[in-house]
Amino acid sequence: MIPRYSRPAMVAIWEPQNRFRIWCEIEAHACDAMATLGVIPEAAAASIRAGGRKAMAAMAADPATHVARIDEIERVTKHDVIAFLTWLADFVGPDSRFVHQGMTSSDVLDTTLAVQLSQAADLLLEDIDKVQAALRKRALEFKDTPTIGRSHGIHAEPTTFGVKLAGHYAAFARCRERLAAARKDVATCAISGAVGTFANIDPRVEAHVAAKLGLAPEPVSTQVIPRDRHAMLFATLGVIAGCMENLATEIRHLQRTEVREAEEFFSPGQKGSSAMPHKRNPVLTENLTGLARLVRGYVVPALENQALWHERDISHSSVERTIGPDATVTLDFALNRLAGVIENLVVYPERMQANFDALGGLVFSQRVMLALTQRGMSREDAYAAVQRNAMESWKGNASFMALCRADADIRRCLADDELVALFDLRYHTQHVDTIFKRVFG
Amino acid sequence: MIPRYSRPAMVAIWEPQNRFRIWCEIEAHACDAMATLGVIPEAAAASIRAGGRKAMAAMAADPATHVARIDEIERVTKHDVIAFLTWLADFVGPDSRFVHQGMTSSDVLDTTLAVQLSQAADLLLEDIDKVQAALRKRALEFKDTPTIGRSHGIHAEPTTFGVKLAGHYAAFARCRERLAAARKDVATCAISGAVGTFANIDPRVEAHVAAKLGLAPEPVSTQVIPRDRHAMLFATLGVIAGCMENLATEIRHLQRTEVREAEEFFSPGQKGSSAMPHKRNPVLTENLTGLARLVRGYVVPALENQALWHERDISHSSVERTIGPDATVTLDFALNRLAGVIENLVVYPERMQANFDALGGLVFSQRVMLALTQRGMSREDAYAAVQRNAMESWKGNASFMALCRADADIRRCLADDELVALFDLRYHTQHVDTIFKRVFG
Amino acid sequence: MIPRYSRPAMVAIWEPQNRFRIWCEIEAHACDAMATLGVIPEAAAASIRAGGRKAMAAMAADPATHVARIDEIERVTKHDVIAFLTWLADFVGPDSRFVHQGMTSSDVLDTTLAVQLSQAADLLLEDIDKVQAALRKRALEFKDTPTIGRSHGIHAEPTTFGVKLAGHYAAFARCRERLAAARKDVATCAISGAVGTFANIDPRVEAHVAAKLGLAPEPVSTQVIPRDRHAMLFATLGVIAGCMENLATEIRHLQRTEVREAEEFFSPGQKGSSAMPHKRNPVLTENLTGLARLVRGYVVPALENQALWHERDISHSSVERTIGPDATVTLDFALNRLAGVIENLVVYPERMQANFDALGGLVFSQRVMLALTQRGMSREDAYAAVQRNAMESWKGNASFMALCRADADIRRCLADDELVALFDLRYHTQHVDTIFKRVFG
Amino acid sequence: MIPRYSRPAMVAIWEPQNRFRIWCEIEAHACDAMATLGVIPEAAAASIRAGGRKAMAAMAADPATHVARIDEIERVTKHDVIAFLTWLADFVGPDSRFVHQGMTSSDVLDTTLAVQLSQAADLLLEDIDKVQAALRKRALEFKDTPTIGRSHGIHAEPTTFGVKLAGHYAAFARCRERLAAARKDVATCAISGAVGTFANIDPRVEAHVAAKLGLAPEPVSTQVIPRDRHAMLFATLGVIAGCMENLATEIRHLQRTEVREAEEFFSPGQKGSSAMPHKRNPVLTENLTGLARLVRGYVVPALENQALWHERDISHSSVERTIGPDATVTLDFALNRLAGVIENLVVYPERMQANFDALGGLVFSQRVMLALTQRGMSREDAYAAVQRNAMESWKGNASFMALCRADADIRRCLADDELVALFDLRYHTQHVDTIFKRVFG
Repeated sequence: MIPRYSRPAMVAIWEPQNRFRIWCEIEAHACDAMATLGVIPEAAAASIRAGGRKAMAAMAADPATHVARIDEIERVTKHDVIAFLTWLADFVGPDSRFVHQGMTSSDVLDTTLAVQLSQAADLLLEDIDKVQAALRKRALEFKDTPTIGRSHGIHAEPTTFGVKLAGHYAAFARCRERLAAARKDVATCAISGAVGTFANIDPRVEAHVAAKLGLAPEPVSTQVIPRDRHAMLFATLGVIAGCMENLATEIRHLQRTEVREAEEFFSPGQKGSSAMPHKRNPVLTENLTGLARLVRGYVVPALENQALWHERDISHSSVERTIGPDATVTLDFALNRLAGVIENLVVYPERMQANFDALGGLVFSQRVMLALTQRGMSREDAYAAVQRNAMESWKGNASFMALCRADADIRRCLADDELVALFDLRYHTQHVDTIFKRVFG
Repeated sequence: MIPRYSRPAMVAIWEPQNRFRIWCEIEAHACDAMATLGVIPEAAAASIRAGGRKAMAAMAADPATHVARIDEIERVTKHDVIAFLTWLADFVGPDSRFVHQGMTSSDVLDTTLAVQLSQAADLLLEDIDKVQAALRKRALEFKDTPTIGRSHGIHAEPTTFGVKLAGHYAAFARCRERLAAARKDVATCAISGAVGTFANIDPRVEAHVAAKLGLAPEPVSTQVIPRDRHAMLFATLGVIAGCMENLATEIRHLQRTEVREAEEFFSPGQKGSSAMPHKRNPVLTENLTGLARLVRGYVVPALENQALWHERDISHSSVERTIGPDATVTLDFALNRLAGVIENLVVYPERMQANFDALGGLVFSQRVMLALTQRGMSREDAYAAVQRNAMESWKGNASFMALCRADADIRRCLADDELVALFDLRYHTQHVDTIFKRVFG
Repeated sequence: MIPRYSRPAMVAIWEPQNRFRIWCEIEAHACDAMATLGVIPEAAAASIRAGGRKAMAAMAADPATHVARIDEIERVTKHDVIAFLTWLADFVGPDSRFVHQGMTSSDVLDTTLAVQLSQAADLLLEDIDKVQAALRKRALEFKDTPTIGRSHGIHAEPTTFGVKLAGHYAAFARCRERLAAARKDVATCAISGAVGTFANIDPRVEAHVAAKLGLAPEPVSTQVIPRDRHAMLFATLGVIAGCMENLATEIRHLQRTEVREAEEFFSPGQKGSSAMPHKRNPVLTENLTGLARLVRGYVVPALENQALWHERDISHSSVERTIGPDATVTLDFALNRLAGVIENLVVYPERMQANFDALGGLVFSQRVMLALTQRGMSREDAYAAVQRNAMESWKGNASFMALCRADADIRRCLADDELVALFDLRYHTQHVDTIFKRVFG
Repeated sequence: MIPRYSRPAMVAIWEPQNRFRIWCEIEAHACDAMATLGVIPEAAAASIRAGGRKAMAAMAADPATHVARIDEIERVTKHDVIAFLTWLADFVGPDSRFVHQGMTSSDVLDTTLAVQLSQAADLLLEDIDKVQAALRKRALEFKDTPTIGRSHGIHAEPTTFGVKLAGHYAAFARCRERLAAARKDVATCAISGAVGTFANIDPRVEAHVAAKLGLAPEPVSTQVIPRDRHAMLFATLGVIAGCMENLATEIRHLQRTEVREAEEFFSPGQKGSSAMPHKRNPVLTENLTGLARLVRGYVVPALENQALWHERDISHSSVERTIGPDATVTLDFALNRLAGVIENLVVYPERMQANFDALGGLVFSQRVMLALTQRGMSREDAYAAVQRNAMESWKGNASFMALCRADADIRRCLADDELVALFDLRYHTQHVDTIFKRVFG
């Protein structure tokens, strides 16, 4: 995560003051529940709430100073939650001894991480919405714009540019569902004390805190929330990154000099190359390709984080401190960039047509073959007859249609006007409505 | 995937004859639908069905010969589906020219892969059931067996061995849900022809084939089914492998010589080491740890498979031919081994108690501290008083309880009988019922 | 590793009979050394040698039967080396009690793996030689064939096709060096007994076996050879796979319909698509792209294999049994395929020229800009003047040269003949000799 | 990379001002060479040198302002090198038009990255030196301290704590060699202009800049330095991280409550747990385990970075901007932490002896078996006799030695004093000198 590839809203989720704010909320909610249960005095809960508010106001007013103060305490205690509680005690006063009773640090840390990851997932869901909105708009705009479909990078058969975009829209719709599921998976609360036995804390405290934070109680937290939940989230981010890379790769291909069917918006004043003033490069989508690699790379350590020792070890912590922000900030930035690229994509229908025409109807080879089989030629013979002319046409000396019209075997089955009618672009786009109805309803 | 780590049922899914069987079904179902739509003669569909049955019977009778024959044709055509269709034509006769009309190879290949991955996921769901059944049984058996909970590998506070197992049960319950979701994600059918436009095939053919095979039609297949679906499945397998590794690691730790609280079943005749006859090693769970690494390793190429070029390229194919079998066969074998390890695990409650007792009550330090705060000592002072005696106790010269009873600061707050009462194991297991109710209902 | 992507020589390295052959050699060499040291009788060593020869002859004559026999014994002992020794004893007779004295299984297993990985590396080095030979030959053939260099997929400036290939040649030359280093790293021998202390085996036995097998003695083997050596080898294979993918990607791009500057050889009888007879797809290089993903995927578990517990655990074993063959067989196949692709690559210099010409000299923009600065225009002004005309030219209405000749600012600095002279292809290839000398000497 | 896991010296390498300093050097050296070759006026080179010095002095005095200024220009040009050159021009004056002549941005960027990675590798080499120094010191200190060697977590046979540490020393010695090789691999210079043809820049300029910066000229730079070099470096960092994790895992195991043979230094004031005052956790080595996962995770995107399109695309850039700092800063921090952990490790020889004694001589089982075979018992019978008593001993009712002394089969071969003599710890450490000589010379 570096400023160049970051957006403030996502960065804010991972800033110390947001973390400390959630810590403070958790401790205050827990005290409320403990007061209700008679474990601590009501008055103590009230002064903890009040002290927490003061502490958070002070933190909000001057985050740098207060974060530094907590860090300073941590350098002595070598324990972050204890450092925070020590700092908080100054605002709460003597009742601070009732704070965190029966809890363990992980109750605070893991529940906080669940809140942060839920917040991050919510932002990412919004990002996907933006990408989908842009894709939908442009898909409808180019619904009937013919373009060549390519398999293996080789001209295959006609499709429309709208259908291309509709496919990517559908992929992001799937990603939205997956992310929503992963968000739910990771949104659990643990206030269960050391090794998760609730020995010193009533399970109803956990229920209260969970409800207040919009989380579900973790069925079995062994001091920590089990890391398969987090692994699932990061793996899902990896899949989303792959969908993003897929679309970015499409655009990079379309902008290739020889293809030039679409282009990233090139703003006035922009320079494509310090050496070559003529350059207009798909730098945004190339960048997205790289960012996808990064997000994918964070999946591996997240999966390795699952096998903690016994009830917990803390090896996961450094990984999550790093990839928690890194993966979400990078993907948030990337999805927003992607939405912008799609919205502003410059599309060249005339180039699509030109590329399409360049091969003299070669892409209608299947339809000619099928017509031949329908007139009784065996599939093998039809394939051979069509392939023979197609291969000749690749050499560039004659168009495929002309060659077919001159082929005796083909003409034995098909009259000239029948043959010519097979070279009809609209035939290939007859089901575009069906596809769009599937995707956009 | 190697025989040593394979089970026949899963291997069979990936054998050529199963693949060809599904291919044959797809072609036959498609012909049925085309006949219904009047695209091909009813009689042709009938003879294709009949020919297909004959072909499959021949294949079943002598798979090696027929697979070899298809491979031989492929060496000429360099195209697997064409090779298969050529072979099939011998059984179908002249009507074979109606087979595969308007379809493209990927229609067959990708729909087949969806069937195979669904079959594989079904086996894996059964495997998880077995693991869960074993965990549930042993969890109930040891529900109230006290054992020390450990964080960082260090004694923390008491829990029960049943609670440990219940936590792993809950993890596999989550894995089951995730796998069911991933199975649904991957179970789609594409019969949409070249670049997925349905130009030469009616979408109703796809609907028919999908219904017959228990799949959903793919909304936008660009000749291929989009690879985010497969990536999601393999990523989910990686997460399941992580849960397995977590449990395997627990058992490896419990079997350590110094811990010896549980042991893999050691069968008569088994040898632990060629050099050291005294050895009884947790080789099965070590093996599971390695297998988890393998399954995790397959996630990376699956994620890289997403960004195909344009409507499709075929780079994904070699990856899936390999990790399709490798990941599912390995995980299937591993989950079955895991279920067996749990079922047959030899548990030593007396060793659990002995380890528990070895530290002289040190693990009750929190309860002493909390009692002190409840008697008015500040949290900081209570922590210091308890830590001071605990650190002395670690040296091994005196038990923690004895030291506390001799500590003037502590005794100022707590009478001797009050203090002794804090060293009560049952206090820590009071909520085991609650936890079990959450997990097992 | 599947037959489709395998070559026999590499597969043979990993077959059980090769493994058993090496086991047998190690035991026999160790007995020889022990006899020399007087630890076992000379006669015993002789009968072990003789018995080993008989055993290996039997194995060679009927590998299936003998491998099955050893597997059968292993099912009882659950220990592979013990099963082998039991089988071997039948050939050796009573002196078999002197076999494996003071050794531990890992001495045999790890030293064998070192031999197998060395053999595999040797094959891979030969593969790289083939790739380099093909690249060298084609690079020299097309040393002076002009082609457009592309950055970001966009035409940049001229280069030659030979220079492209020379760059890939240089990459494989680096890979060769890296693989040679990794081979040396992994080629060590451990005959050090349980936990590697040589308690029951003289270090001179290790020295003898190492010398016989062409390995170096492992300085500290803690029963196992440390796994950083293996990790380094697999990581190196991942880097080689990346170089292969880079070249494969280049060819896939060159074969794109719109580019068509080079093409994989398309053999008579080959079919590009079951549906579209006109297709000629770069399926081999797409395949190589997928295979590169696989090899890269094996790096992760190899790196995870390093952190074994204490003197050793056996979690690495299942990983290595799988990726040992999988990574080396896949890469061996892939490199051979790559060499063939390069050797048989169909190159179209006239298409290179046509693509080059299509943009009307746009790619000489830098040279025009530099000429303007040399005539006193500031870099910023020169960039602006050139970019202005280039962007106009992209629209396709006029060639860049024509636009420059009509630009007053440019013409103020450059006479018409001076300007035209800047559009000279040969200017860009003046240093091709220098580059070739660097690469090929 | 986050401040918590960073050291200033490594962070400084990646700060903008270091990057700009290297950019400035490269441009100035290139101008010097061009002046010598007569391409630009000597006076221009002199004023560029002087302007560069002024610019760098200004940057050093107030990096924030100047970095912000360059960023501001980049927001317009969307090109970082052009932004820098524009900023630099203010210090150089009119002669700035001679700067960067014939060069392309990548010449600057890639050569700079080579310098930064070389600097980073140099720091990491120093880090490894520290780790080795600590390991050597402690290895010598505990050279003869007996401890049990463990395979599979199970007691195997005796070794010494010094031998354990010597093994890790040897691993880091290998890592040092690998890193030195990777550093050399990545330390190349490219000043070859657009698509690397030297069209507008003499190769002698590159040679001059390379010499000045201590780099080798890149044989074929296709505008960029090929990314297999970088991949190799990051892969090597992953292997080093694995060696670190291996040692960290050892320490975590040794500190387990039941083992307690060594402990991370626990400083006064430190708190192990907010809830449990008795805790002393191996948090540093757990942290190193997590950091190893991170460094390993960066290998994957580095390998994916290799397959750039044609002469280059820029997808690698975002990856390197992130993992360049992240991987090197994290590993630098981790290696330093590791050195500290080793230096300050608290070792408990008496606990080693106690653990050793706990099993009543079970670990001498091999020696008893070998003695039996030397007295004529077959290996199989000897194994069975010893295993029989060992398995009985595991039950905890009698010591292994006592059981053997009472075993008639054993006693038939071995007199009582012969048998007792086999339980001799020193027998197992007789070759420690040999091992130390191999490692430390």
